[in-house]
Amino acid sequence: MDEKEIKQTVVTQAMKAKLAARKLALLPTQTKNKIILAMAEALVKSKDDILFHNEIDVEAAKESGLAEALVDRLTLNEARIQEMARSLKDIAALPDPVGEVIADWIPPAGIHIQKVRVPLGVVAMIYESRPNVTVDAAGLCLKAGNAVLLRGGSEAINSNHLLVKTIAPAAYAAGLPEGAIQFVETTDRKAILEMIKLDQLIDLVIPRGGEEMIRFVREHATVPVLSHGGGLCHTYVDKAADLEMARKIAFNAKCQRPGVCNAMETLLVHKDVAEKFLPLICSDYQKAGVEMRGDPQVKKIFDGVLLAVDKDWSTEHLAMIVSIKIVASIDEAINHISKHGSGHSEAIVTGDAAAAEKFLSEVDAAAVFHNASTRLHDGGVFGFGSEIGISTQKLHSRGTMGLKELTTTKYKIHGNGEVRE
Amino acid sequence: MDEKEIKQTVVTQAMKAKLAARKLALLPTQTKNKIILAMAEALVKSKDDILFHNEIDVEAAKESGLAEALVDRLTLNEARIQEMARSLKDIAALPDPVGEVIADWIPPAGIHIQKVRVPLGVVAMIYESRPNVTVDAAGLCLKAGNAVLLRGGSEAINSNHLLVKTIAPAAYAAGLPEGAIQFVETTDRKAILEMIKLDQLIDLVIPRGGEEMIRFVREHATVPVLSHGGGLCHTYVDKAADLEMARKIAFNAKCQRPGVCNAMETLLVHKDVAEKFLPLICSDYQKAGVEMRGDPQVKKIFDGVLLAVDKDWSTEHLAMIVSIKIVASIDEAINHISKHGSGHSEAIVTGDAAAAEKFLSEVDAAAVFHNASTRLHDGGVFGFGSEIGISTQKLHSRGTMGLKELTTTKYKIHGNGEVRE
Repeated sequence: MDEKEIKQTVVTQAMKAKLAARKLALLPTQTKNKIILAMAEALVKSKDDILFHNEIDVEAAKESGLAEALVDRLTLNEARIQEMARSLKDIAALPDPVGEVIADWIPPAGIHIQKVRVPLGVVAMIYESRPNVTVDAAGLCLKAGNAVLLRGGSEAINSNHLLVKTIAPAAYAAGLPEGAIQFVETTDRKAILEMIKLDQLIDLVIPRGGEEMIRFVREHATVPVLSHGGGLCHTYVDKAADLEMARKIAFNAKCQRPGVCNAMETLLVHKDVAEKFLPLICSDYQKAGVEMRGDPQVKKIFDGVLLAVDKDWSTEHLAMIVSIKIVASIDEAINHISKHGSGHSEAIVTGDAAAAEKFLSEVDAAAVFHNASTRLHDGGVFGFGSEIGISTQKLHSRGTMGLKELTTTKYKIHGNGEVRE
Repeated sequence: MDEKEIKQTVVTQAMKAKLAARKLALLPTQTKNKIILAMAEALVKSKDDILFHNEIDVEAAKESGLAEALVDRLTLNEARIQEMARSLKDIAALPDPVGEVIADWIPPAGIHIQKVRVPLGVVAMIYESRPNVTVDAAGLCLKAGNAVLLRGGSEAINSNHLLVKTIAPAAYAAGLPEGAIQFVETTDRKAILEMIKLDQLIDLVIPRGGEEMIRFVREHATVPVLSHGGGLCHTYVDKAADLEMARKIAFNAKCQRPGVCNAMETLLVHKDVAEKFLPLICSDYQKAGVEMRGDPQVKKIFDGVLLAVDKDWSTEHLAMIVSIKIVASIDEAINHISKHGSGHSEAIVTGDAAAAEKFLSEVDAAAVFHNASTRLHDGGVFGFGSEIGISTQKLHSRGTMGLKELTTTKYKIHGNGEVRE
């Protein structure tokens, strides 16, 4: 397709989605749940077909020399299809955010005002690699009453194509307005560029994938963007910390799943407890195979710590590597976080309530933890159900993003002839 | 100043603002109110000096041939200075949004989660013409705990400069952290371009002024933008309308203040009541001097209506001009609004509850009114106090924007050693 054809195709799809969104916004919760459950059922029924098409992608990826971890993320099997179906069932079971009355009052003017949660309209999902995003995103968007345009990466084109070919007809048969789930077939990057500029037709774009792609979307979009933010998270062990608790938290935050955004990258330790605490946690890290990079004092206290370079304080390792620094005060810890943190999740371990309150108030991040692991910043743990990521933006949505973040609000006002005096 | 110097100046100002914002975020409500009241007092004390500098701007504007309406907006007098001071006192009296606990719960994981309202950080205000924006914006931003960078237009440079020179020292003397109110002196547009790309230092940019300037900011900003949206608002008179009520509402929506965003531009009338209703409202409009542009049927019913052209349905007149159309059904009315409306404020007049509910649900706008004038969409009327505008965006803030919209949220979590299993 040439540029003009790509544009035309994308615009036509977005227009269809917008028409569908108007109808979808009015569907009752029960119908939306029926639709989502029908999608789950269709997935399981078509599993052989899905696996067959997924194998084409996986073979191509191996041939092209895609990294093993990425090939793994791309690969489907029966268990993963069952997982996708279960995820849809979980979404169907979540409370419907649409229609929630957030506020309800009568001001002196006498009109009755209600602030009500309503769908956004059309959501464009731009993602890479993992085919389960196709299903999760479709389920979450539909539950929140939004039409969805799905644009997966070229490496998963056959899998994604077949997933949409499976879930969309099932959803339409269950009552979804035609056009509310669409797959953008072209793998040309120009299709993304066209989509993210359609601010008259698309209400939100969610990029999900590598940093480079997210930056590309942010830079060129005129449609509002909601994206998962990177996490350079710290744990600060205060002088008044329960050191056994600190040991457990600092180990969990680093090691339980090091490749994710809410894992800890840097451990800050108050100088008064460094000599006692560092040998404990560093031997735990050493046993677990964590590479430790510390300032000269840390290195002096525990043998086997490498000397940290400046870059270590500002690197999201996403691996079994930890940067360790000794600080002279809680203020030095807060300043270090303010300089290097990404505003994602930050923790203090302390038995001193005033120090905890100071840290929680002064550290500017989406979530601030006292005596708990940063790994707990998660939609599931928080009780929100499925999440579409964790935002480090300050506008619209900060922290874990779920169904509510896929909605907007509207003032519904009833009067009896009131006018402006 | 050359480009490099402009950049350096703006970056230095933004860095100072960021440092100030960290301290300002922690100020108690009482101190913030004391600061805002000190600003009000300083304004009144320095009124002669302010009027003297304002006259320089006004003279220059007249000489350069600025339109009379704009000269009027630029002009200060004693009453307007008193108004600015009163506006600050009103802001001081508003409840503090910072610290509000929006949600508070303990999920199965056992941690205690609180979602708390916190300041955004640094807000950049870019505006034109009216010097009172300098004072209002500073007051609102400070109350919400944000540092503010003020960048007014060149036509008001002397007035704005003196206003900041008046309120900032008074605020600092009352306890505001140094750097929390700053005026960007250079009138070069490049200063705007530099500011709106400082997403590491500035958290929000609010453009307030002409459409061209707002579009410029939206197109080039990497800092999130919150802006007032234009209003192409409709009033639909249903077949089941109380026609006397409809007459009062349609007249108020058009005539009470035609130059503002929530004024009505297009009147839609159901065909069943057109012959009875149009002669009533059109003679009211005629007496008030409103120019009427209708479809051929409207023109046939009321003499003195001009024939509307296509462009009239999509024009925000902001003047004593009304477009009038007869529709065959409520669905035609909703479709017309969906095609031409700007998503601002829309109204239906009807005695039929089902029709009202249909309209309020299906029309996609920030505020939808049943039996009330669109002119009521206003922060003051809604009971929010001062507003910084009305947003037609769907993300972060939809509809009238006040103090809350100048904040974000943060999850504060207390645990007892909880980790991710």
